[in-house]
Amino acid sequence: MTYPPPLHDPDARGFASDNYAGIHPEILQAIVRANGGHQVAYGADVYTQHLQGVFRKHFGADAMAYPVFNGTGANVISLQSMTERWDAVICAESAHINVDECGAPERVGGLKLLPVPTSQGKLTPELVELQARGWGDEHRAQPKVVSITQSTELGTRYSVDEIAAIVEHAHGHDLAVHLDGARIANAAAALDVPLRAFTTDVGVDVVSFGGTKNGMMLGECVVVLNPDAVRGMAFLRKLSMQLASKMRFVSVQFDALLSGDLWLRNARHANCMALRLATAVRDVDGVEVQRPVEANSVFAIMPPAATERLQGRYPFYVWDESSGEVRWMTSFDTTEADVDGFAAALKEEMATDVSRRDAG
Amino acid sequence: MTYPPPLHDPDARGFASDNYAGIHPEILQAIVRANGGHQVAYGADVYTQHLQGVFRKHFGADAMAYPVFNGTGANVISLQSMTERWDAVICAESAHINVDECGAPERVGGLKLLPVPTSQGKLTPELVELQARGWGDEHRAQPKVVSITQSTELGTRYSVDEIAAIVEHAHGHDLAVHLDGARIANAAAALDVPLRAFTTDVGVDVVSFGGTKNGMMLGECVVVLNPDAVRGMAFLRKLSMQLASKMRFVSVQFDALLSGDLWLRNARHANCMALRLATAVRDVDGVEVQRPVEANSVFAIMPPAATERLQGRYPFYVWDESSGEVRWMTSFDTTEADVDGFAAALKEEMATDVSRRDAG
Amino acid sequence: MTYPPPLHDPDARGFASDNYAGIHPEILQAIVRANGGHQVAYGADVYTQHLQGVFRKHFGADAMAYPVFNGTGANVISLQSMTERWDAVICAESAHINVDECGAPERVGGLKLLPVPTSQGKLTPELVELQARGWGDEHRAQPKVVSITQSTELGTRYSVDEIAAIVEHAHGHDLAVHLDGARIANAAAALDVPLRAFTTDVGVDVVSFGGTKNGMMLGECVVVLNPDAVRGMAFLRKLSMQLASKMRFVSVQFDALLSGDLWLRNARHANCMALRLATAVRDVDGVEVQRPVEANSVFAIMPPAATERLQGRYPFYVWDESSGEVRWMTSFDTTEADVDGFAAALKEEMATDVSRRDAG
Amino acid sequence: MTYPPPLHDPDARGFASDNYAGIHPEILQAIVRANGGHQVAYGADVYTQHLQGVFRKHFGADAMAYPVFNGTGANVISLQSMTERWDAVICAESAHINVDECGAPERVGGLKLLPVPTSQGKLTPELVELQARGWGDEHRAQPKVVSITQSTELGTRYSVDEIAAIVEHAHGHDLAVHLDGARIANAAAALDVPLRAFTTDVGVDVVSFGGTKNGMMLGECVVVLNPDAVRGMAFLRKLSMQLASKMRFVSVQFDALLSGDLWLRNARHANCMALRLATAVRDVDGVEVQRPVEANSVFAIMPPAATERLQGRYPFYVWDESSGEVRWMTSFDTTEADVDGFAAALKEEMATDVSRRDAG
Repeated sequence: MTYPPPLHDPDARGFASDNYAGIHPEILQAIVRANGGHQVAYGADVYTQHLQGVFRKHFGADAMAYPVFNGTGANVISLQSMTERWDAVICAESAHINVDECGAPERVGGLKLLPVPTSQGKLTPELVELQARGWGDEHRAQPKVVSITQSTELGTRYSVDEIAAIVEHAHGHDLAVHLDGARIANAAAALDVPLRAFTTDVGVDVVSFGGTKNGMMLGECVVVLNPDAVRGMAFLRKLSMQLASKMRFVSVQFDALLSGDLWLRNARHANCMALRLATAVRDVDGVEVQRPVEANSVFAIMPPAATERLQGRYPFYVWDESSGEVRWMTSFDTTEADVDGFAAALKEEMATDVSRRDAG
Repeated sequence: MTYPPPLHDPDARGFASDNYAGIHPEILQAIVRANGGHQVAYGADVYTQHLQGVFRKHFGADAMAYPVFNGTGANVISLQSMTERWDAVICAESAHINVDECGAPERVGGLKLLPVPTSQGKLTPELVELQARGWGDEHRAQPKVVSITQSTELGTRYSVDEIAAIVEHAHGHDLAVHLDGARIANAAAALDVPLRAFTTDVGVDVVSFGGTKNGMMLGECVVVLNPDAVRGMAFLRKLSMQLASKMRFVSVQFDALLSGDLWLRNARHANCMALRLATAVRDVDGVEVQRPVEANSVFAIMPPAATERLQGRYPFYVWDESSGEVRWMTSFDTTEADVDGFAAALKEEMATDVSRRDAG
Repeated sequence: MTYPPPLHDPDARGFASDNYAGIHPEILQAIVRANGGHQVAYGADVYTQHLQGVFRKHFGADAMAYPVFNGTGANVISLQSMTERWDAVICAESAHINVDECGAPERVGGLKLLPVPTSQGKLTPELVELQARGWGDEHRAQPKVVSITQSTELGTRYSVDEIAAIVEHAHGHDLAVHLDGARIANAAAALDVPLRAFTTDVGVDVVSFGGTKNGMMLGECVVVLNPDAVRGMAFLRKLSMQLASKMRFVSVQFDALLSGDLWLRNARHANCMALRLATAVRDVDGVEVQRPVEANSVFAIMPPAATERLQGRYPFYVWDESSGEVRWMTSFDTTEADVDGFAAALKEEMATDVSRRDAG
Repeated sequence: MTYPPPLHDPDARGFASDNYAGIHPEILQAIVRANGGHQVAYGADVYTQHLQGVFRKHFGADAMAYPVFNGTGANVISLQSMTERWDAVICAESAHINVDECGAPERVGGLKLLPVPTSQGKLTPELVELQARGWGDEHRAQPKVVSITQSTELGTRYSVDEIAAIVEHAHGHDLAVHLDGARIANAAAALDVPLRAFTTDVGVDVVSFGGTKNGMMLGECVVVLNPDAVRGMAFLRKLSMQLASKMRFVSVQFDALLSGDLWLRNARHANCMALRLATAVRDVDGVEVQRPVEANSVFAIMPPAATERLQGRYPFYVWDESSGEVRWMTSFDTTEADVDGFAAALKEEMATDVSRRDAG
């Protein structure tokens, strides 16, 4: 049998997002491995069962893993499992759950979010405290969960101590802590610590563990670290429409990612490429790197005209129209040549700007 | 690099469900084809764009395809797009949306279902009429959609004329029609008509098109046939947590299924295996086939003790504890040998029953 | 100061509904009594506090009363307080929560209802059993509450033993029991037992206690009999938009109703008027009383033409267009003359029918 | 017949809230007026019909009035009627819908709020602009409504021009405008303009019209000014559990309030009392009036110890624990003597503070 050629150029890569990338070959191979024959649907298969041990190896003996389809699903299921119908979730204003899920937490989960402005996407005990009040007052949605993102939507990361401080503060208020780990591997790689160092070991209760952005075809996982913090996980996953029937093919991808060090290799590489990019552009006149480069993205401000021309050559996103801030994101498959080519193109377009200005 | 061996027996198959099966090799190959390089996330990739034409080939020039993760997602998004907050959905009491989705239509979509008892899982204009009333009465959730399943949850199928009659009746009441096609291919194969014959051509408005049960790894698709019947599809898919970031890998599976005749080959084969099984067991004493075998499942009543022994040899489900009814389901990968082996095992277990009875 | 005359005829009464009636004078006087000065809002006033003791007198020492605005509110708050997000409620198909609340249980509470057809609006242990299954199966909304209505939407009532049997059966399945008591006083009056006889004493967990239909201006009350069966009442009342700011004026109405025997006098009178009506029409040729007259309504089948003429003289509702069944409802302010006048009018219209037929 | 004495002191009043007050005598008289006889339930009565004309007199010929139970209900119904399932509402961070409704907008309506920090509770076109973006982006809840409060939760009010500017800006973005008028009468009285001057005449689309805080026993009203901006009002009122059965008694209260000038007299008086209070305390050493006194409340910062002692004599609320800000609210029944007595008490307690400090 012959197959049609691909519709896309398998050698073209940009800096738009780590979910523009495809599937890491080892993960694709794992899907093949799990194929053939029949396996119980909806998670009672051997791959999903095996996966429990894999996650426990990383997150400790109490960890329970619930594979789901995507990050929004993982977050909304996590938060529902941690709350009563009248509870609220404290989060950074820039949190994915607040700005990028089309209101899914509110609409699917009936959740009230209590967002707090931050400078770099990171909460602190002091910022949590701004919303940590009003318990017992029936007029106020009851704060019950603090949700943080690691690494953050702004490419920054919490230190282990920073998360420990938030958790301690939260637990002191009887608030549980959820960690949106869509890019948790990038954070662990950048911190050079095990995954449990800033989760289980400091008392985080539930993690949305990201796979898609780190080389999987598709799949995220709710990882319950503190069983006492949740209720009804299996039911919530189903009623939230996140229960895969052929779950073995989601679970085996996580197995490939986490049984060895693939998760770490992929994340380290992406982080490294972001640093390489930041270094390459830092001295370009007219380009200002805006935030600490602490995971796999670089945020910079540059002239809109140059941005537009550069986007014609490499896909990437404008993050903030008003300030001209752009986001460049690296992934497991970004090459050094990609970075160097992009940096060169950037310099060309910036030079054009300068020469135009000079000529103006 | 070496990979660990599979954890399961890739040659073991049963009759529990068509979603116990794995991925058809041609579909797996398609996933490989779409890999490599970067593609725009969230459905703006070339595979998803190409897919529009593929679906239009099957469903007509107005069809729009919205790939999603699973069947519950496809159903709940479809129904939300067709309704206002105060509307209701008429369905068979046995409908998947009513009995098998843990209340997702109600909880995620805020939908009111108006279920009607049926004998074989099939609505009729007369049955629809039982709930088609009360428009303008603010106390009653307003009937707005009729949802039918083809082939049904009970292994039966509607004829083209039966669906045409329901649609005509529904449209006469200004009710739109949704078709849950988790096994739509099996129905088309069994009817030996194109997919559009009992959908577009008879006026069905929206289809939940099933891929997972017909050989895909994962993926269903909301197919809008009548654009005037829906609103807000893209937003509803996102807020219902069914928007895949690396959508190319869902879309390319549908492409592999539908660009050629794989969808039909798979469905025909599964149907054929169900007929073979029904034929093989029909004369077994003590086993009564209960329903018309019109797609890829066989429902039968048999003695619970024999059921239990047989389940020890092949996985399958008891459908109704009270009556002893069991369900045997075939899939694209069921072999003739599988069927024959299962029929032989069934006969052995039934014979054991008889001999025990004789000895009793 | 002079006031404009009323816009309506204060001496005109019909048989449409007990909520067409106005306010009983003793209740209006109670509103006046609570007026003047300031009282803490949202239920921390002295009248609401006092009301707790009044309800405990009727329902026992554990009873807690949460006044709300209306019956739908009382029901949906009750059911939310008794369930997790994934739970379901077994009810009669004819239950108000299923047919008359425009889907509020589903839309506000995210509740899944599991309706069961009944002949006279009454569940039985056997009928409950039809839906009491599937615990632990994540695909099925988890049955958690049985909701019954006393007296029922069809004018029938449960005996004490019938409710006791349902509760025993439900509790045996770990199902809690909710009683929709929009007309609970009519039931108690008809059974000639205290309110607690068929609630607290037989193990009902939560009651929606009706005031509006028994002479109040406005107000219902969630009465929690088993504190272990509920969670979050105060929050659920607020987030369900049923928390009155000037609650003293709702509470004092209940006080007037329940501190003495007004609740019973009103209900007895309404019931008595229904019996008088049923007696008066039972022998009218062509009119068939359809259901046991066990509270304050009479259901009858009569010729549609006569129905229409009679409705021109007295307001009442057609209950079922297809069968020609009508509902006549009495209230605390229905007089013997009202009943006799209505019965006479009915006879006239039926006679017209006969004479027309004879002349035809 | 004799009635028990009231449980409270009808001559005691404080400064806690305008909903601590009771019913204005003219409104109570109106309830009496509407009593007796039968009237169609659920709003088809003559008082509710008559009310339409009353509201049209104030708000113009297109106005439609939908009486409901309370302010949260009015707001959430209004916002649902103006939005699709995927839409969002821009509001001040201090808005009642954001901070005082226990998440009802999110939980009942599935609404996403986009709150904006303000200094005095008032939005501006510039502040609206901060959230007015992202249309067409499926990841972002789609801004569709701007909701403002007049007078605000902080005792301030918008000028006619300020609202006109917001509406113009909003409509320019195809955003509809909702006005939470829990204290709309106080705003109109303070501005000394008709109600329509800052609503209908400047293009506001929907108003939550407050009655309870201005002398009614209970009742608010959704007033639709622009019928094209809403859908499904009657259904939304019912499914949101805000449909009164004996609606005549809500409607007649609004009639009493709005047919003559009672609404204005009550509001003017309350406003006047707030100004008297502000004037009386402005020179008290250690007490700082914090915000413009533009309606019927005064916000001030004073020493916590004095606050506590003063609360022992008159009920009022601490608004912000951290800053020591307190709120004093006047109502239609606040007397000059009440104000003068309170001011005197305040001075005494402040003096105590000083003398203690001096003695310390």
